[in-house]
Amino acid sequence: MFSNALRRNGIGLVFAGILAGAPMLAQTSSELNVMPLPAKVQLGNGALPIDRGFTIGFVGFRDERVDRAGQRFLAQLHRETGIVFASAGSQAGVLARRDAVRATLLVTTNRDSKPVQELGEDESYTLEVTSSEAKLTAPTTLGTLRGLQTFLQLVSITPNGFSVPGVSIQDQPRFPWRGLMIDSARHFMPIGVIKRNLDGMEAVKMNVFHWHLSDNQGFRVESHRFPKLTSEGSDGLFYTQDEVREVITYARDRGIRVVPEFDMPGHSTAWFAGYPELASGPGPYQIERRWGIFDPAMDPTNDKTYKFLNDLIGEMARLFPDQFFHIGGDEVNGKEWSANPKVQDFMKARNIKNNVELQAYFSQRVQEIVVKHGKTTIGWDEVLIPGVPKTVVIQSWRGAESLSAAAKQGYSGILSNGYYIDLGWSAARHYTVDPMGGVAANLSDDEKKRILGGESTMWSEFVNAENVDSRIWPRNAAIAERFWSPQNATDLDSMYRRMEAESIRLEWLGLTHRTYQRQMVQRMAGPASAEETAALMALVEALEPVKDYTREALATEEPTSQTPLVRVVDAVNPESSTSRRFSANVDQFVAGSCQDAGLSANLRVQLTQWAKNDGSVETAGLRSSIVKEATPASSALSQSAELALGALDRIAQGLPVPDDLKKQQIDALNAFENQAHKSQLTIPARAAFQKLIEAAGSGGTCTGSK
Amino acid sequence: MFSNALRRNGIGLVFAGILAGAPMLAQTSSELNVMPLPAKVQLGNGALPIDRGFTIGFVGFRDERVDRAGQRFLAQLHRETGIVFASAGSQAGVLARRDAVRATLLVTTNRDSKPVQELGEDESYTLEVTSSEAKLTAPTTLGTLRGLQTFLQLVSITPNGFSVPGVSIQDQPRFPWRGLMIDSARHFMPIGVIKRNLDGMEAVKMNVFHWHLSDNQGFRVESHRFPKLTSEGSDGLFYTQDEVREVITYARDRGIRVVPEFDMPGHSTAWFAGYPELASGPGPYQIERRWGIFDPAMDPTNDKTYKFLNDLIGEMARLFPDQFFHIGGDEVNGKEWSANPKVQDFMKARNIKNNVELQAYFSQRVQEIVVKHGKTTIGWDEVLIPGVPKTVVIQSWRGAESLSAAAKQGYSGILSNGYYIDLGWSAARHYTVDPMGGVAANLSDDEKKRILGGESTMWSEFVNAENVDSRIWPRNAAIAERFWSPQNATDLDSMYRRMEAESIRLEWLGLTHRTYQRQMVQRMAGPASAEETAALMALVEALEPVKDYTREALATEEPTSQTPLVRVVDAVNPESSTSRRFSANVDQFVAGSCQDAGLSANLRVQLTQWAKNDGSVETAGLRSSIVKEATPASSALSQSAELALGALDRIAQGLPVPDDLKKQQIDALNAFENQAHKSQLTIPARAAFQKLIEAAGSGGTCTGSK
Repeated sequence: MFSNALRRNGIGLVFAGILAGAPMLAQTSSELNVMPLPAKVQLGNGALPIDRGFTIGFVGFRDERVDRAGQRFLAQLHRETGIVFASAGSQAGVLARRDAVRATLLVTTNRDSKPVQELGEDESYTLEVTSSEAKLTAPTTLGTLRGLQTFLQLVSITPNGFSVPGVSIQDQPRFPWRGLMIDSARHFMPIGVIKRNLDGMEAVKMNVFHWHLSDNQGFRVESHRFPKLTSEGSDGLFYTQDEVREVITYARDRGIRVVPEFDMPGHSTAWFAGYPELASGPGPYQIERRWGIFDPAMDPTNDKTYKFLNDLIGEMARLFPDQFFHIGGDEVNGKEWSANPKVQDFMKARNIKNNVELQAYFSQRVQEIVVKHGKTTIGWDEVLIPGVPKTVVIQSWRGAESLSAAAKQGYSGILSNGYYIDLGWSAARHYTVDPMGGVAANLSDDEKKRILGGESTMWSEFVNAENVDSRIWPRNAAIAERFWSPQNATDLDSMYRRMEAESIRLEWLGLTHRTYQRQMVQRMAGPASAEETAALMALVEALEPVKDYTREALATEEPTSQTPLVRVVDAVNPESSTSRRFSANVDQFVAGSCQDAGLSANLRVQLTQWAKNDGSVETAGLRSSIVKEATPASSALSQSAELALGALDRIAQGLPVPDDLKKQQIDALNAFENQAHKSQLTIPARAAFQKLIEAAGSGGTCTGSK
Repeated sequence: MFSNALRRNGIGLVFAGILAGAPMLAQTSSELNVMPLPAKVQLGNGALPIDRGFTIGFVGFRDERVDRAGQRFLAQLHRETGIVFASAGSQAGVLARRDAVRATLLVTTNRDSKPVQELGEDESYTLEVTSSEAKLTAPTTLGTLRGLQTFLQLVSITPNGFSVPGVSIQDQPRFPWRGLMIDSARHFMPIGVIKRNLDGMEAVKMNVFHWHLSDNQGFRVESHRFPKLTSEGSDGLFYTQDEVREVITYARDRGIRVVPEFDMPGHSTAWFAGYPELASGPGPYQIERRWGIFDPAMDPTNDKTYKFLNDLIGEMARLFPDQFFHIGGDEVNGKEWSANPKVQDFMKARNIKNNVELQAYFSQRVQEIVVKHGKTTIGWDEVLIPGVPKTVVIQSWRGAESLSAAAKQGYSGILSNGYYIDLGWSAARHYTVDPMGGVAANLSDDEKKRILGGESTMWSEFVNAENVDSRIWPRNAAIAERFWSPQNATDLDSMYRRMEAESIRLEWLGLTHRTYQRQMVQRMAGPASAEETAALMALVEALEPVKDYTREALATEEPTSQTPLVRVVDAVNPESSTSRRFSANVDQFVAGSCQDAGLSANLRVQLTQWAKNDGSVETAGLRSSIVKEATPASSALSQSAELALGALDRIAQGLPVPDDLKKQQIDALNAFENQAHKSQLTIPARAAFQKLIEAAGSGGTCTGSK
């Protein structure tokens, strides 16, 4: 076993998330499959048909980026509808400027956005659709990009072919910083993975790609100045500078800024593999293969460290045009500093009392370097120490209190606590976290302005190129809505309905969040019978990985970067749609005093499938070590479903159920849940099973109890 | 409606395909999931574990292509197993030459293959696997490439993790020309589609990619000499010369030759859009958007035509390094020639009696140009006319008789009749066609040597980038086996079992033949309920497109290159695995006198699902015009299944069934089949339904009749 007590990604305050409802908003826009919900929606009459005659025209500001946006728009519209537009090939459907006014969708862009996209640029747009035409108008190219995505989401199949409903939309984001962080250090993510996720971000109007590029397990960007960073610190898995530029261009085309992170002075073992002289310990160092927090840290007392960082930050500041430069700064345990007499002497000589103050000294000097190279520093909570300039932006993994405290001191910040998508939470749980929630609600208006938005974070200990999309999507769409849409967009049913629709659309962009599961099942099943494969699919569709950091805690063998990610826990979605729908049906059934025969039949079908499912899984487990490992969870699911089925029977037959039997059964459910934990899996329908057991009335009636 | 009477792809002789069985071969190698079956397989003892310690080493000839093959091998092995090999990053698992002898898999390559891959090069290899090591030995790099694929197919999951069974394989191809043709002209296929299909070809040891690059609907390769070929004749959808070179390199890495086809003098309307002076008619010409055979043909009487072709063929001969150059030559209807007085004068002056002779004159001159540029001509049957040099190779769409006749005259040829994968045949039907079958079996040994192999042909009237993979795979794997494996490999059960396993593996290569279906269903369903989506999936999994050219014949509106390919007929597989398995179960059930209760229950589950399925499809059809169009077929399936279910009931209850009732029911089945045709769909389980009806004994017993 290993320690993860200090893990950044760990302890966090969960927002109460009691937000004011907004019935007016929900009643209009939440009927449309648009995500994030626009600021203002007015449903109109009729619908604009989308057929082969559809054209798009651009007036006002127009450049190559706008042209590419038009091409991308039509390619996506083709994927959504199969329609082959006009007959002008790669220019199909885009009208020349002189003909633009007669386009089906006329796009007017007032001016270009900044050459290097800036925080807080205008992203607003208006979209008017009638039964004969559509008009998209935006002050800047960014608004145009956002509006095109809204239009694409509005296209739907009808009894008369594809069309867009008549609608009037005025839209703008709530927060200027709406980010997704991807950790390319722990598991390297090939450039194709990055690009398709940028496509996904564009679809849900996120505008910051935070690229976590270095950590103990790897340094992932080519440096011409310090080639050993990758030759010794990346296992050959890194991005060339050309590839980085390609990603930046790709992102800019989609209205997305790219903020690089080079984590220091901790989380930097991989740097030391090639440059041990940067470290505070004696070395030698190797790429770290384990997960967690480790001792190696840069030597903050050596001028050569700052010389190195000056050169590297200079090189990277030229490579990454964004105004912001992320220096990490998190989770330094200080052990190397405490063990190094030279460091101790330095501290005494300068009256630096402890390691926190020493890190403050380091941060201060690095922050000066960043500023010298024309950038604004951003770092995790730890960089906020007394004396740090007010220009430094704080990314809070600690939570709302920490962020609010910073805002009160005059610091701007973004919230990531509550948006750690590696923790396996439900979309609803993330959705309920608001950057202005909790104590932030008490901030003054000026202080509130310092809350710039938030970022979801995809830490990659347990994801690789194969399943990373499934950990990001579709839940990230719900988080994107939190950052874009009005605070009163809180209807969970609407959110889930629209998220499921968006999930299908995201697949057209090449995201693999819906296809990876069957492939993983087939790997573990081998040439199994169709029946066994179906049973394994039913299993992975029903279960979820254990939440938060319990995966590490439950591991019998320490997971490393070389552990194959091929198990059932790697194949199950963070949130099971099947179990969520089942649980919602149970709630509805119980709320209706168990009278709804249709719902009852529906529940019975699902429970019977689960109850019978383990047989085929056990058979598959005889031939496959990977399946075998998950058979305790499979048997736990089937036995739990049996119990729930029994409860359903008793409800149907009006049989009395003594309280002690109920208790026994609930105890059994808990035992099954623990049994599933052996495979690092959880049974998300467990609470629903329990509700059925509790609903079976002691006098033979459903009490509707919860 | 439109005529397709003359269509090349049409009329064809179906081989009797009665081939001698080979029980010895089948008993050993057909148990392994290898496709194509190797020439000789001896099963050994034990198994070689595949784990993180696995390494591969290369001795003998080694160059960058071999290195890339090693990388590709390990990447594929990683995808198959999830194992993270060693810790040397992009070089993970590949040992340096000095360490190679201690590799888990030691590869010995004697010499490189030719710089430009040639017809008939040695592709043999031997593979010896024991419980402690594996040795792959090949005379040339091509054999190494083939053997690596066999090894990858042998990897399977076991109760103890992944391993390769002990085995001794000596393998070599039966035919030297094993091709797949893809038509990039009718629907343009982006370069990514081509590449992933080359990956698929490598996996099943095909070695010729025949690239159909021009037709009435488009000219798809950039020509520097004649830029209007693409600027006027491609809708902007074409391959740059750099992209062509990229494909050729990609193919060579995989041991695949690239044979370009420029179809002439017919099938060339797209050329005339930019260069009307080439044509025999007055023009002007536009890109053809319809399918079929059209009048435009090159002017064979004008020296400028040959000057143009000399320059173009020269340019393309330099671009494509392969020895063979395909000039098409098929389906000229001669109407423009007959209507052109100048052409008629020319024919009279030279005593050319008819259009066939005129085409012969044209072919002769083009063939001389091809030879002048250092290439060997290949063309469809029509190029074989008296006096054509014996070096010309014939690709036969007409069939075995035509090909045998050519062989007797001294011409070499390849068979494509029987391998038209656009026709929707079953894998079994293609598999049963043998290039040495039918009249070819009577050829002398010398004549037989002239049968070089065969090619499957993916004509693209009704496929695009989205669904083309599903029309090629997995059936093409069965055809690849026909071309590679011994003639006596004819066990259909074994073929289907291995093809299904290979189908899963092909998905790891990025082929979309298993993922496109759900995406198309979701497009047509829109935001349907999970239940409706499941019903639509069940529908598309049960049905098939109508076969051969009946799709055109049944179309109520003439399909063109602009017709969206989004319908149920576009989403169904050419061969339904579900219906095939159901039909096989019915055969087994009836053969066992309907006594097997397990099988009966199994059939009942499937029939009940089909019988109930139409309800949800009809509901979805109320909201979607695309679904609506297929509801006749959905209702036909459900009603057919009801009839079969009734028959199953009568069998179970031993009820008598009068013959006239049976006849009535069979008539009804036929009527339902016709009803499905309205949506251009067929019910592949229809014959199985009929068997159940017939099996219901008139005296109340199952008679086992067929």
